[in-house]
Amino acid sequence: MENKTMFTDFYEITMSQVYFDNNLEETQVVFDVFYRRNIFDGGYAIMGGLDEVIDYIRNFRLTDEDIYFLRNKGIFSEKHLEYLRRLKFSGDIFAIPDGTPIFPNEPVMTVRAKATEAAFIETAILNSFNHGSLITTKAKRVVNAAGDIPIMEFGARRGNTIEGATIASKYAIIGGCVATSNTLGGERDDLNLSGTMAHAFIEMFPSEYDAFLAYAKTFPKSTTLLVDTYNVLKSGVPNAIRVAKEYLEPNGYRLKGIRIDSGDLAYLTKEARKMLDAAGLHDTAICVSNGLDEYKLESILSQGASIDSLGIGENIVNPKEIFGGVYKLVSVVKDGVYIPKIKISDDAVKTINPAYKKVYRFYDKETGYAIADVVTLHDEVIDLNSYTLIDPVNNDNFKTIQNYDVRELQVPIFLGGELVYHQPSIVERQEYCKREFETLYPEVTRLINPHKYYVDLSLELLNIKKQMIKDSRRVLKND
Amino acid sequence: MENKTMFTDFYEITMSQVYFDNNLEETQVVFDVFYRRNIFDGGYAIMGGLDEVIDYIRNFRLTDEDIYFLRNKGIFSEKHLEYLRRLKFSGDIFAIPDGTPIFPNEPVMTVRAKATEAAFIETAILNSFNHGSLITTKAKRVVNAAGDIPIMEFGARRGNTIEGATIASKYAIIGGCVATSNTLGGERDDLNLSGTMAHAFIEMFPSEYDAFLAYAKTFPKSTTLLVDTYNVLKSGVPNAIRVAKEYLEPNGYRLKGIRIDSGDLAYLTKEARKMLDAAGLHDTAICVSNGLDEYKLESILSQGASIDSLGIGENIVNPKEIFGGVYKLVSVVKDGVYIPKIKISDDAVKTINPAYKKVYRFYDKETGYAIADVVTLHDEVIDLNSYTLIDPVNNDNFKTIQNYDVRELQVPIFLGGELVYHQPSIVERQEYCKREFETLYPEVTRLINPHKYYVDLSLELLNIKKQMIKDSRRVLKND
Repeated sequence: MENKTMFTDFYEITMSQVYFDNNLEETQVVFDVFYRRNIFDGGYAIMGGLDEVIDYIRNFRLTDEDIYFLRNKGIFSEKHLEYLRRLKFSGDIFAIPDGTPIFPNEPVMTVRAKATEAAFIETAILNSFNHGSLITTKAKRVVNAAGDIPIMEFGARRGNTIEGATIASKYAIIGGCVATSNTLGGERDDLNLSGTMAHAFIEMFPSEYDAFLAYAKTFPKSTTLLVDTYNVLKSGVPNAIRVAKEYLEPNGYRLKGIRIDSGDLAYLTKEARKMLDAAGLHDTAICVSNGLDEYKLESILSQGASIDSLGIGENIVNPKEIFGGVYKLVSVVKDGVYIPKIKISDDAVKTINPAYKKVYRFYDKETGYAIADVVTLHDEVIDLNSYTLIDPVNNDNFKTIQNYDVRELQVPIFLGGELVYHQPSIVERQEYCKREFETLYPEVTRLINPHKYYVDLSLELLNIKKQMIKDSRRVLKND
Repeated sequence: MENKTMFTDFYEITMSQVYFDNNLEETQVVFDVFYRRNIFDGGYAIMGGLDEVIDYIRNFRLTDEDIYFLRNKGIFSEKHLEYLRRLKFSGDIFAIPDGTPIFPNEPVMTVRAKATEAAFIETAILNSFNHGSLITTKAKRVVNAAGDIPIMEFGARRGNTIEGATIASKYAIIGGCVATSNTLGGERDDLNLSGTMAHAFIEMFPSEYDAFLAYAKTFPKSTTLLVDTYNVLKSGVPNAIRVAKEYLEPNGYRLKGIRIDSGDLAYLTKEARKMLDAAGLHDTAICVSNGLDEYKLESILSQGASIDSLGIGENIVNPKEIFGGVYKLVSVVKDGVYIPKIKISDDAVKTINPAYKKVYRFYDKETGYAIADVVTLHDEVIDLNSYTLIDPVNNDNFKTIQNYDVRELQVPIFLGGELVYHQPSIVERQEYCKREFETLYPEVTRLINPHKYYVDLSLELLNIKKQMIKDSRRVLKND
């Protein structure tokens, strides 16, 4: 396999040369990964991308060819190149596990490492987190809108490269899809596969009926027929019923399903259901797959569409939004002390949360619902009996809670450069994601105008942040 | 390297089993790849993705592990599995070369092969075409909006997986970007690399000035300083000027550039330009990079922003649209004759163009501008002196042209399963793309409400299509 270590923004390497020239390369630093806005104006996101982060870090190594390539740029010193040739990731990475609901402005991942190492891995970490979380979040949004209707991921042809689409299939399953059409994904990650026939298949036979019959003869136990090649209600459904009656039932089988891939799905599914029921095919499922997303789905379901399963293509593997995760320096270690760092923005919401931190989720002990997340300094101790939540924007707003369970969200992934985390299987992550999602209030997960989930700062962190903002204003005023 | 052959929608394999059971697997068929709508309501698209199509087809081979995996699904016959184990692509593929302007409803790729082979490769072909063309098109749109300002691709962290982002870097360059920040892309595809420093770098030093000075000492010949960590006009630009005056100029160097990554770019670049000019730094370039796309770019340029180079991130490598390429059966060979196939849609525009075809581009001999593309039957001969273009929607609209050059757009890529096409280098494709783009009328390439480029059908093809639509209506009426 090609070594991917060189997947890094070139400026990480020019910065590395300067760090090296200034003896800064071994300075311990802390970076947080976080994001600022939920995609699709939703109330939550779902963590994804850890597999690819782990792969990148584990295989981190610049080859002789990489060094040769960099040398030819003519701007790096031999000493620095030799340093890069031996570079390994020797630091710590903490992350919120795949499948966990996450929220804006909390550290979903924290990297504590030497300056050059922490910089070199930024690009791969953000790329993996952004892509994995985008797909997992979008899948969960669609799955949530579908209620009890199972969703199959059908987007391989609309994904971003073979590798991108295949990794997307995995995160679609973690987000709650029950199967994928992507055979490589199925083989690589042990995912359920789904698929029957395309329109071209129907056209390969003298008639639609002949095509249906041929399929039923080969796969009598799992005959799902694509009924919209010519005309759903005049041709497709009648031919499907005919195959059920003339071939499947006489041979002891039932017609498993029909699939509709075009047209007005609310109308067509209701009419098809009536025709199937009238023929005694109450157990024949109706699958639809035509450019659906969570919004269209909610709309056609509210119109009474009769749908038993769904195939979703581009709208899961290639959502039309960007998951804007960022990687920000929050602390530099000096003489063994974590000095907090802040990046002030004119836009107060964009000012980052400084310092080496942890993040906790509070659950109501009685209902099990998640109440709020609290970001604290890394060495704070959380009182298990009573805790005061403070609104990070309007600090006069606070409330003291009791009777809660509290959980630290980040877990160690790498310690001292060694992988210490064992990824759960895809199915385990899917189940974990489902359970964790159920701890969110429905108000937080609804499609339109969701309630904002609270991500608060501890009093100590809030005070440090305020002081740093004040100090930075003073500096600018003195300019 | 992992074999990617299994990247295929599972239904291609269930269909294959049915073809096999019905002795259809060797039937010769013809599929066209085309798309229906230009992304971002533009007037054109740019072909991309051929490298990945070629890679997939060349390495096409199911391994023993793949067969083992399929056997365990419990639905495929041993004879069929043995057939798959030996399957190779033995057909022909014709395609319009990477970098060529392409338009809706013309065959950008044509596959002529045995039914099972043609089906199996559908998913990878569409995935590669859709992704490659999406990125190349978007890059060209942004490059075109930027006029003479060079654009660097900075989107690695926002791409879709490491592989997806790296392939995207390549197509961004073909589309006209001058460099990428993606070091792996630079190494793999010999692309120009670009990058200097991040905000975190500035924060690693006691002051912004110290950071700038350290960078200038290491890279005096190519000092481009990121000036927006604290305050562009009060801190960043003055410190950059100070480094130019106090360190670079005394040592015989000039300050190469400054980079602004946030804020109101029209205002900040104009003010920064004044400050640099006042300091005698007329040759110091201003680079900007803050969530720009072709629309924002056009807007800030019209406001007189002073920009010498641009870094574009997510908006090139991850455009928020889908390139909806499709793969449609257009002909089945019976007794040596190409029988045309059509898929009728209630929406007349979605009814496909039937038959095994070719596509030609007509250029005005005097101006060099592209006049129209014409889709013909595969064995038509184009008159080189006079040709009548017919509007495919309103057939009464026609005009006869003379004094043109005509070029067949598709070239053979695979013949009898053998690769016969030699991909030009990335730079050659970039130059070819630039030249071909210049043959489009500016009315076709403008951002807002572009003129529709003509993709016409030959009279013979038009007549066959009309007859097939008429025949299919008769069939439905008789139902």
